[in-house]
Amino acid sequence: MCRDLRQGRKQEMLRLGVDIGGTNIKLGIVDDTAMKLVSRLTFHFPGDPEKVCLGIRENAEKLASDAGGSVDDIGAVGIAVPGSVDPAGETVINAFNLGFRNVPLKAGIEKVFPGKKVVMANDADAAALAELKMGAFRGAKTAVLLTLGTGLGGAVIIGGKLFRGGLGHGTEPGHFLLRYGGIPCTCGNSGCAEAYCRAGRLSELYKSAAGRSASPKEVIELALEKDAKALEVMSDYADDLSAVIASFCNILDPEVIALGGGVGEGAVMIYEPLRRLVKEKSFSGYDYKIVPAELGNGAGMLGAALLLGEV
Amino acid sequence: MCRDLRQGRKQEMLRLGVDIGGTNIKLGIVDDTAMKLVSRLTFHFPGDPEKVCLGIRENAEKLASDAGGSVDDIGAVGIAVPGSVDPAGETVINAFNLGFRNVPLKAGIEKVFPGKKVVMANDADAAALAELKMGAFRGAKTAVLLTLGTGLGGAVIIGGKLFRGGLGHGTEPGHFLLRYGGIPCTCGNSGCAEAYCRAGRLSELYKSAAGRSASPKEVIELALEKDAKALEVMSDYADDLSAVIASFCNILDPEVIALGGGVGEGAVMIYEPLRRLVKEKSFSGYDYKIVPAELGNGAGMLGAALLLGEV
Repeated sequence: MCRDLRQGRKQEMLRLGVDIGGTNIKLGIVDDTAMKLVSRLTFHFPGDPEKVCLGIRENAEKLASDAGGSVDDIGAVGIAVPGSVDPAGETVINAFNLGFRNVPLKAGIEKVFPGKKVVMANDADAAALAELKMGAFRGAKTAVLLTLGTGLGGAVIIGGKLFRGGLGHGTEPGHFLLRYGGIPCTCGNSGCAEAYCRAGRLSELYKSAAGRSASPKEVIELALEKDAKALEVMSDYADDLSAVIASFCNILDPEVIALGGGVGEGAVMIYEPLRRLVKEKSFSGYDYKIVPAELGNGAGMLGAALLLGEV
Repeated sequence: MCRDLRQGRKQEMLRLGVDIGGTNIKLGIVDDTAMKLVSRLTFHFPGDPEKVCLGIRENAEKLASDAGGSVDDIGAVGIAVPGSVDPAGETVINAFNLGFRNVPLKAGIEKVFPGKKVVMANDADAAALAELKMGAFRGAKTAVLLTLGTGLGGAVIIGGKLFRGGLGHGTEPGHFLLRYGGIPCTCGNSGCAEAYCRAGRLSELYKSAAGRSASPKEVIELALEKDAKALEVMSDYADDLSAVIASFCNILDPEVIALGGGVGEGAVMIYEPLRRLVKEKSFSGYDYKIVPAELGNGAGMLGAALLLGEV
């Protein structure tokens, strides 16, 4: 498969990145010096935390062996989880999609990788770090990643580094208010940006415009085919999203805003109106750079591999 | 008056801070090493930019002389303006209250203080810097200042330094959205935080609750006297303000949030409900520290004196 592990690289250059999702767990070995993915595999999320740790160890051995080496060649392990992590990076406080609540996952991973450095972070934070090192944020000091998928996730780069909040609680761009008192949000507030800008909103808007159901992906495809109702939906969605981005610009004034998730990657028609609307709505009137995220759904795994020394 | 200028201090320790307002211009001499105000005076805003520069020079001479020294003892001049400043800190782009638009004010000040270092910034940025060096933000790495007065101004501290936006356009906390599509804002958008949280909103809410007019200050005084309608108004206002603060907490997760302006200083009854509501609304559920700003309306002038080397 890949010969990199046989080429006598120093251990500290090779890192294992793990992105734990509620359906699949992605593993990748990254060469931190060359900023290059050496090899990767995916396995099914096995459910409880202990099985997750054992599954990661077992599949890491397979991955390293397929690449012509062994787990001993890996210097550090990074874990990305879809949920909140405590400021010390030891415990998964809440990861709804995994069914994890107050799970001391770092210790569990350390147990199956004795002697290796383990770092854990939120998956959006990991993705933003990957975009910073290898993708849309290269060279930027201030940047915002918004992932438009099941929810509205995201992360913030400030001073050329991942910003995890002043007190370590992380950043939650989806729970930035857009219309306080508006659509109820899963977090308990109403009117959060997530309620208006998650992918599912496209289906809701389409149902109300066209009177029939369509998945977010179908709405995007219809818009690409110039379906009038779908274009109207994308226009309304872009208007709300532009207001969220303009709010960010009025605080962080970022060099780059990258959009990931299914909508950020697929809805190519929203970028031009978004740029125009953000320019109109932002206080500075600046023509902010708004681009698709570059690393797709491998970003969390790549970023996890790069976490050591960054969080 | 004050003997500090006679005590043989090194020139680089003494700085002149100037806060230009639409009614008055405040001047102060600050000892940058001792972080102490040496002397201050206020004079009437004379209108056009040239008269402003000449007035500042003339009054600086008076101020230095009253303190037993001369303008030669001052190492640097800092200027705070109530409006937007270009990223280079040379031009006032827009300061509505001064009637200044695209005024190259830094050059004007340099002309009247030949050979002295001149630094210019937005007044809220200067105030936040003063709170960082001498007030509510001492020792903090991440902090947010919101000034609740004629408008909703404010500034952000990140990494223990004044954050002026990633691209230098400054931060505009007042134009962070609270209810997109809601009350029209002076910036051209609708539903900005400023439209709901400026001091004047207290009068609007009181008019609608009690059927009669009262200034923001009067509403606060009525609330201090336990007037039922005024307390209801303060409660509604605190709810909106808590939503704005929670949005900030979900992004910046600051160690301290300080409230300045007439409402931040006078409305002591809002702090307890604010803290409770922000804890409820913020994603982390953390008990954020929300306090009155400490330096009052001298903060802009003090911060202006401290700008050199900070922006």
